[in-house]
Amino acid sequence: MKLVIVGGVAGGASAAARARRLSEEAEIVVFERGPDVSFANCGLPYYIGGEIADREKLLVTTPERLRSRFNLDVRTRSSVESIDRKAQNIRVRDLVTGREYTESYDKLILATGAAPFRPPIRGMDLPGVFTLRNLEDTDRIKEQIDHGVKSAVLLGGGFISLELAENFVRRGITTTIVEKNDQILTPFDKEMTTPIVQGLAAKGVRLVLGQSAESLEPSGHALLVGLTSGEKIPADLVVFGIGVRPENKLAVDAGLAVGPRGGIQVNEYLQTADPDIYAVGDTIEVTDFVTGNTTQIPLAGPANRQGRIAADNVMGRSVKFRGTQGTAILGFFNHTAAATGASEKTLRRLNRPYRKVYIHPAHHAGYYPGAEGMTLKVLFDPSSGRLLGAQGVGGAGVDKRIDVLAIAIQARMTVFDLEESELSYAPQYGSAKDPINMVAFVASGLLRGDHPQVDLEAVLSGQSEDEPLLIDVRTPKEFEAGHIPGAVNIPVDELRSRLDEIPRGRKVNAYCQVGQRGYLATRILLQHGIDALNIGGGYKTFELFRPKVADRCP
Amino acid sequence: MKLVIVGGVAGGASAAARARRLSEEAEIVVFERGPDVSFANCGLPYYIGGEIADREKLLVTTPERLRSRFNLDVRTRSSVESIDRKAQNIRVRDLVTGREYTESYDKLILATGAAPFRPPIRGMDLPGVFTLRNLEDTDRIKEQIDHGVKSAVLLGGGFISLELAENFVRRGITTTIVEKNDQILTPFDKEMTTPIVQGLAAKGVRLVLGQSAESLEPSGHALLVGLTSGEKIPADLVVFGIGVRPENKLAVDAGLAVGPRGGIQVNEYLQTADPDIYAVGDTIEVTDFVTGNTTQIPLAGPANRQGRIAADNVMGRSVKFRGTQGTAILGFFNHTAAATGASEKTLRRLNRPYRKVYIHPAHHAGYYPGAEGMTLKVLFDPSSGRLLGAQGVGGAGVDKRIDVLAIAIQARMTVFDLEESELSYAPQYGSAKDPINMVAFVASGLLRGDHPQVDLEAVLSGQSEDEPLLIDVRTPKEFEAGHIPGAVNIPVDELRSRLDEIPRGRKVNAYCQVGQRGYLATRILLQHGIDALNIGGGYKTFELFRPKVADRCP
Ligand SMILES: Cc1cc2nc3c(=O)[nH]c(=O)nc-3n(C[C@H](O)[C@H](O)[C@H](O)COP(=O)(O)OP(=O)(O)OC[C@H]3O[C@@H](n4cnc5c(N)ncnc54)[C@H](O)[C@@H]3O)c2cc1C
Ligand SMILES: Cc1cc2nc3c(=O)[nH]c(=O)nc-3n(C[C@H](O)[C@H](O)[C@H](O)COP(=O)(O)OP(=O)(O)OC[C@H]3O[C@@H](n4cnc5c(N)ncnc54)[C@H](O)[C@@H]3O)c2cc1C
Ligand SMILES: CC(C)(COP(=O)(O)OP(=O)(O)OC[C@H]1O[C@@H](n2cnc3c(N)ncnc32)[C@H](O)[C@@H]1OP(=O)(O)O)[C@@H](O)C(=O)NCCC(=O)NCCS
Ligand SMILES: CC(C)(COP(=O)(O)OP(=O)(O)OC[C@H]1O[C@@H](n2cnc3c(N)ncnc32)[C@H](O)[C@@H]1OP(=O)(O)O)[C@@H](O)C(=O)NCCC(=O)NCCS
Repeated sequence: MKLVIVGGVAGGASAAARARRLSEEAEIVVFERGPDVSFANCGLPYYIGGEIADREKLLVTTPERLRSRFNLDVRTRSSVESIDRKAQNIRVRDLVTGREYTESYDKLILATGAAPFRPPIRGMDLPGVFTLRNLEDTDRIKEQIDHGVKSAVLLGGGFISLELAENFVRRGITTTIVEKNDQILTPFDKEMTTPIVQGLAAKGVRLVLGQSAESLEPSGHALLVGLTSGEKIPADLVVFGIGVRPENKLAVDAGLAVGPRGGIQVNEYLQTADPDIYAVGDTIEVTDFVTGNTTQIPLAGPANRQGRIAADNVMGRSVKFRGTQGTAILGFFNHTAAATGASEKTLRRLNRPYRKVYIHPAHHAGYYPGAEGMTLKVLFDPSSGRLLGAQGVGGAGVDKRIDVLAIAIQARMTVFDLEESELSYAPQYGSAKDPINMVAFVASGLLRGDHPQVDLEAVLSGQSEDEPLLIDVRTPKEFEAGHIPGAVNIPVDELRSRLDEIPRGRKVNAYCQVGQRGYLATRILLQHGIDALNIGGGYKTFELFRPKVADRCP
Repeated sequence: MKLVIVGGVAGGASAAARARRLSEEAEIVVFERGPDVSFANCGLPYYIGGEIADREKLLVTTPERLRSRFNLDVRTRSSVESIDRKAQNIRVRDLVTGREYTESYDKLILATGAAPFRPPIRGMDLPGVFTLRNLEDTDRIKEQIDHGVKSAVLLGGGFISLELAENFVRRGITTTIVEKNDQILTPFDKEMTTPIVQGLAAKGVRLVLGQSAESLEPSGHALLVGLTSGEKIPADLVVFGIGVRPENKLAVDAGLAVGPRGGIQVNEYLQTADPDIYAVGDTIEVTDFVTGNTTQIPLAGPANRQGRIAADNVMGRSVKFRGTQGTAILGFFNHTAAATGASEKTLRRLNRPYRKVYIHPAHHAGYYPGAEGMTLKVLFDPSSGRLLGAQGVGGAGVDKRIDVLAIAIQARMTVFDLEESELSYAPQYGSAKDPINMVAFVASGLLRGDHPQVDLEAVLSGQSEDEPLLIDVRTPKEFEAGHIPGAVNIPVDELRSRLDEIPRGRKVNAYCQVGQRGYLATRILLQHGIDALNIGGGYKTFELFRPKVADRCP
């Protein structure tokens, strides 16, 4: 058995190592175009910023180690140029010598990854204009910064741009992010990105939404980035991080099908239409575990696990990949944003019924010092209560809650199940009712009809025909510090004795700071025959949708 | 409907608040013997140590707030003395005035908690001898410390003693922990407590295992704690934390059944044999979610959720409590130890078949600075792979992994399911293959026969009749720094070329530092026809079972 793998980083190297563990006899050849294998793509921004001081650390392993430990035939600086499926061989170009040769295979795994998209605009090839994918890109960007970069423009408001922004700030570079959409971090719903947008502003990063680069021109030693608006932003350094495109050329040329976004199509066993050719990682199209649709999720976890599964199947096992649920996380200084499963945007686009709740808990008991706040948003099926997606943004503990919810989504659990979850509690770590329990209480109450909620968007858009009375049940002090326009103030603790202030027959929308007092108010009103809804997530959620202007970037 | 609740802290106050949300009309009376309701028991040690500076913070809510917000009739310093089930009333003593009166009920919830066990030894009533349950105990202990305490003895090596030890160290008190068993933290398996034992030693806390207090005598202004060994330890302050006993007197006197350990017996609806009386929290016996046995789990999360469920049932709903899985967590300075589900000890005691694996991952990508180590132990069913229990000990990120595993246990997931888990990964938060995936790979490999493992205990006890060859596959340098007695050293990278050094027909036990190279070695050996087993968890696990003597406390 001769296994040939194209691409030697996350998916490819994982497949190779696993294949060797399964078979000592197999001949395993790994072709990698670049000089390195198995490097830590995900660490590159932090090496640029200096957090990771030692370049060596980025090399998770080396070709030599793969040879000595796994008895792999690793050929770096070797580009695979084409596949001859009939002859079961590939054409390889040695990038050092220029020599071309063919190499036969019994089974082939394509783990070619995805390349940063380079838009066809003027000036892309100017010095100072980069994309970031591998160590060579990193070295080039870092070298320029080490020689003095005062200002940078990052095109695209995705994960890599934000990670670069953190590291550019660390290096004292005046940074602008330009994003074509009306929000950064598109896997999240827009309101959930507000704390990150505010974090950018607090660190002096300028954010320009709804714009893209139209041109790049040299200007002295620097560049001018021309936007759709006509504005020209000067910058010493420009990095494009506007998405990636599957490196599918080998597959396409060989007649293997790719999806609408270019991802190589594979079956559950990660096998292409050619049973001897498998494909894994950023280069493939995957099934969304929640929606069942095909999508592309270019992340390292899936790439690694797919590599392992493809190796299993190559070696004669029969292992399915269950699909991807899009679990992703971003750190921006002390902010964390994480998500798993479907976003509200996606569910709306698919016309899939859902309900949602927001809570704003502390990451551990409030009475213990150091509790950091977060917002959790959970989406679920309105009839079964099955979890569909979750997003979290805040400080410490966001990763934990999203990981817990990721497992719950994998297990197809419902919000009712999570009411019963038993998570670890001591005051430094959580709460007796963990945020997970709380969000499940709020969601379950909604589905049971105990806790009827109206979404803030509906309130803000004035969708309700019968103009409900908007009651702010917080204290007068909180009310005065800012409230939803049109609200009247009746503190929850006075509500029972002030019910007569509510006109008979008038519907009520109640709210408080985070939703909890609004819920109690709703319970009181309902039981007094008043048709009331709680505005889920309260004023804090309002502030996510309508951030104070001062927090907005110019 | 008149609901009477006895006990106004975790279970009782939660039940009262939930009952009010479900019914505005119900008359709800809460009796609490102490002066406070709803306080944060779990924060008490940290207030003593000064981490929580403000006593007010410990009052999660007040009787006044419960009255104004929830319209509850809260009677503090009111001890319920007896229940007349026939007459459906209780006898109450007002501890301020001494007045006794009866109060009728339609439904009664007992949330009386558990009292620290006070062993019947001489000197228990001496000044300076304490137990810790409530704010009054806390005030007394803190007052004495504020007046100058140089040395303390903590009886019992459970959670509360260890939390107190941390806080005593913080206050500069020379502290000794005396534990009757041969290990601290009995919900954990002994080897998993080694890092905490070492942490105690590192902070100068003396640990005496296998001893208990036999006597207490005054000695000048201080005390002498007499141990079973005859040793007398001088101390200014002594705290007994040797377990709690359900406060079941009301129930017992009323003829309600209690279990062998004193917990009030309830059905799935948390109802006692008397359908009008419910019981929740530390005072009840619960079903262990994993083993199905009855047990007692005196923790705040279950108490809170049980209170909520009992209120639901009182108000005419029909909600089951699914049992408790014993999720618990301890912080000791920068150490964390957490557990969920069954321990190995428990499974062995119940003669329940299981297998186990250990891994020693970093809490996030090793190439990103600040990665902290941990040990994860996972127990699972050998035929189905179903998770039975998990324990973690280390630094950051232990709580996250145990919470993830707690959800997986709740969902009755298998180790095979966790191979496919998709958890959030960026280098500050995790790894592309998260420790959860890794532990699942190792466990699944064991069950599939790909990764045959031998438990370290079997190796150490020489159980194997055919004396396998013990091969240490680490580097010579690692080998020289310490190895399992009797091992020979063949580094994994040389193994393929040194196979002839292994006598034909001889079985092999291989190991490395954490298990991973040992696994690869095992794969190589097996495929060369050598009957090999990997010693799960490697040398690091050996060091948990056989900690260096210097790390042991005298
Ligand atoms: C800066 C950065 C930060 C990231 N951060 C995160 C993160 O925090 N979390 C996360 O989950 N993911 C992150 N990712 C994404 C993650 O790195 C990728 O999802 C993952 O590496 C994909 O693995 P892969 O094997 O499919 O492709 P790659 O790792 O890209 O490997 C593909 C390899 O194939 C080689 N190749 C392509 N074509 C050929 C050919 N014809 N012949 C020979 N070789 C070829 C390429 O040179 C490349 O080295 C980040 C990526 C980048 C660039
Ligand atoms: C120091 C300390 C630290 C802890 N740390 C943690 C932790 O980190 N994590 C965790 O999960 N758990 C922890 N716990 C345990 C947790 O506090 C308990 O499990 C929880 O409080 C139990 O709730 P409960 O309602 O059953 O009992 P309790 O909270 O003890 O409340 C029972 C109340 O009933 C009252 N009462 C009893 N009998 C009568 C009567 N006859 N009449 C009137 N009132 C009566 C008592 O005065 C008491 O206030 C800790 C406990 C202590 C003491
Ligand atoms: C203070 C106390 C009486 C409050 O009881 P409670 O109101 O039931 O509990 P919480 O404050 O945790 O709130 C939970 C309720 O608020 C709702 N809620 C929480 N966050 C919400 C939000 N953002 N929006 C709307 N509702 C929310 C939940 O749905 C839940 O209501 P439900 O049970 O009707 O579904 C009780 O928690 C207590 O005594 N705690 C301290 C004592 C203790 O636990 N000690 C031991 C541990 S230190
Ligand atoms: C370095 C690399 C080639 C190693 O591949 P690998 O050996 O399959 O992966 P890992 O080192 O993660 O180890 C996983 C294997 O070790 C085993 N293992 C892990 N911990 C173990 C332990 N304590 N005891 C025994 N076995 C263990 C696992 O079971 C698994 O083996 P299996 O797949 O046969 O079940 C690959 O992970 C890689 O290229 N990584 C870096 C590139 C990358 O991912 N970049 C993008 C993210 S920054």
